[in-house]
Amino acid sequence: MNLGQLIRNSASWLQGVADEDGMVVSSRARLARNIGALPFPHKASDAERDRVISQVLDAARTSTWLEDATFLPMEGLEQNAQRALVERHLISPALAEGSGPRGVLFARDESMGAMINEEDHLRLQALVSGFQAEEAGKRVNALSDAMGRHLDYAFDRQWGYLTACPTNTGTGLRLSVLVHLPALVLCDEMERVLRGLNQMAFCVRGFHGEGTRAVGNLFQVSNQATLGYSDGDLVDGLIRITQKLLGFERDAQSDLMREAASQVEDKVWRAYGLLSNARVLSSQEFMNLLSAVRLGRSLRLIDSVPSSFMNRLMITTQSAHLQAEHGSVLQSGERDVLRARSVRRQMAGLASREGGG
Amino acid sequence: MNLGQLIRNSASWLQGVADEDGMVVSSRARLARNIGALPFPHKASDAERDRVISQVLDAARTSTWLEDATFLPMEGLEQNAQRALVERHLISPALAEGSGPRGVLFARDESMGAMINEEDHLRLQALVSGFQAEEAGKRVNALSDAMGRHLDYAFDRQWGYLTACPTNTGTGLRLSVLVHLPALVLCDEMERVLRGLNQMAFCVRGFHGEGTRAVGNLFQVSNQATLGYSDGDLVDGLIRITQKLLGFERDAQSDLMREAASQVEDKVWRAYGLLSNARVLSSQEFMNLLSAVRLGRSLRLIDSVPSSFMNRLMITTQSAHLQAEHGSVLQSGERDVLRARSVRRQMAGLASREGGG
Repeated sequence: MNLGQLIRNSASWLQGVADEDGMVVSSRARLARNIGALPFPHKASDAERDRVISQVLDAARTSTWLEDATFLPMEGLEQNAQRALVERHLISPALAEGSGPRGVLFARDESMGAMINEEDHLRLQALVSGFQAEEAGKRVNALSDAMGRHLDYAFDRQWGYLTACPTNTGTGLRLSVLVHLPALVLCDEMERVLRGLNQMAFCVRGFHGEGTRAVGNLFQVSNQATLGYSDGDLVDGLIRITQKLLGFERDAQSDLMREAASQVEDKVWRAYGLLSNARVLSSQEFMNLLSAVRLGRSLRLIDSVPSSFMNRLMITTQSAHLQAEHGSVLQSGERDVLRARSVRRQMAGLASREGGG
Repeated sequence: MNLGQLIRNSASWLQGVADEDGMVVSSRARLARNIGALPFPHKASDAERDRVISQVLDAARTSTWLEDATFLPMEGLEQNAQRALVERHLISPALAEGSGPRGVLFARDESMGAMINEEDHLRLQALVSGFQAEEAGKRVNALSDAMGRHLDYAFDRQWGYLTACPTNTGTGLRLSVLVHLPALVLCDEMERVLRGLNQMAFCVRGFHGEGTRAVGNLFQVSNQATLGYSDGDLVDGLIRITQKLLGFERDAQSDLMREAASQVEDKVWRAYGLLSNARVLSSQEFMNLLSAVRLGRSLRLIDSVPSSFMNRLMITTQSAHLQAEHGSVLQSGERDVLRARSVRRQMAGLASREGGG
């Protein structure tokens, strides 16, 4: 799959299934695995890293999950293609920014993938639509098992799977759910909610990595550590904490509608009008407007914009996608014009499919 | 014509003819006339004011301009109907707020009218679409002449027509042109332009009377005094000063497009999107958004919204019109919701007439 095909690819995790009234975008499970006979990537020579890659590719060919997968080596891959992979959640920024032999392998529908020679030899990933954390966990474990029949994983009876960073040791499972919590943000309750939840092995943080502010009212619920927990504990805990958050969000949405229905409806439809008509859209404004439309969908104020459409729009209007579409690197101002055009055309396509207006 | 018919009436001066690329809404001429044998209204008894009314109505019946006219007495007319007449430019706030026998007479297409027993016995008015000040002047003089064949106007050889307030003495002609100057406002040049022009017998001020700020970037160019000037002087002067203003505005529009085309286009289309989708619209925000769309029309960035549509929208979404449409007095918050609904429906009607989207 080349860059042009990739940016148009229809990733299955964007299809808006099991989205809990538009409140959950996706669920993701990642596993860290290493090959026992070879040093961790940061200690390995280029030749050793190459051996990791070839062993992983051989193992992948035997898995039904990855038999039709695309492998993209990072070395020699242009920077914008690397950024597009980050934008599609197929690789971490760390893999893009690293050096030496490394790459990514991903299934045609982008639901399964593996980073090779990131922090660990293997970071396996399952990415599914909506609130399906358990399913994501099952899939990534199945992938790990399938690959493990051909790879000799570094494993210790007392500690579990060994990883380059001790916090991943144990089951190595990292689960996360991407949730949309606009009413909690609007009602200024997010801080209070987070204080109550950021304990135990879980944390809730703004979308796009640690320490960043919440872009478009999207938050990532994930587990912090894996050592000492079973996969079952982690999945159950994540589901419980996410359900709690969704409950708070539902309450906040009800409060909003009870107290300011016209203003909320106004906010939702203004956002729809701006997305459909603006000629300049920064990434941040776009995400805020999309959040308002998503809220409208959760509240059933707007039914012409499906979750699948919003999810795809969110991915395809990021900078690297716009640049790939345009065929060259753009200044920020040009990107904002192209973003607005892309959003507008997609919105117009949606409106015409809906039968006008 | 009753209130329900009035608010739906298609006034000819809103039809967007001769609008100079959307920059001129309308031209108006008013004449002050008094009946020599009766005291000025503020000195007249109710019986005398009644005699003024009946003499004027008799005279009007013989004029082709007003033979099919509607007469509405102010006494007993509900407040909202009075406000709707102000909103349609058929009467002044002073006539509505006055007391005693007084009223308004206006032609079916609202192009000609007469206030009776406002400050003077008669304030004749001609209101035409776009930049047609000379035509407005001609029409109001023709109306004055026609009525004068049956009324004995107070006239003095030295001073001209006598009026209750000395500033109207002379020809009694008040001309005004309603212009839209968004680029001059955006470029912060309005103050400089006004300093240069507010001299001589003319003045430029914000729409809706003296001393108010410019609502929706609409300004009224008018003459200050009439004594000592011929009708020809006043018309020529007003045309010259208006053409100057329109030239400045055209230059400012060109500057804007040269320096910030994307931002201007964005502003125009965002306004279109908000007018089409907002659920709450204050009068002031509405006028600002309409101004942006009007600018888009002047710049040929948008061609789906004709001037006639914008002019009618401006009139029919004012408070008294909304209340008349709704059938009861509304709170400001309710009005903003109804205004948004009315604007949205009219915009949707326009889009569907345009053939979708």
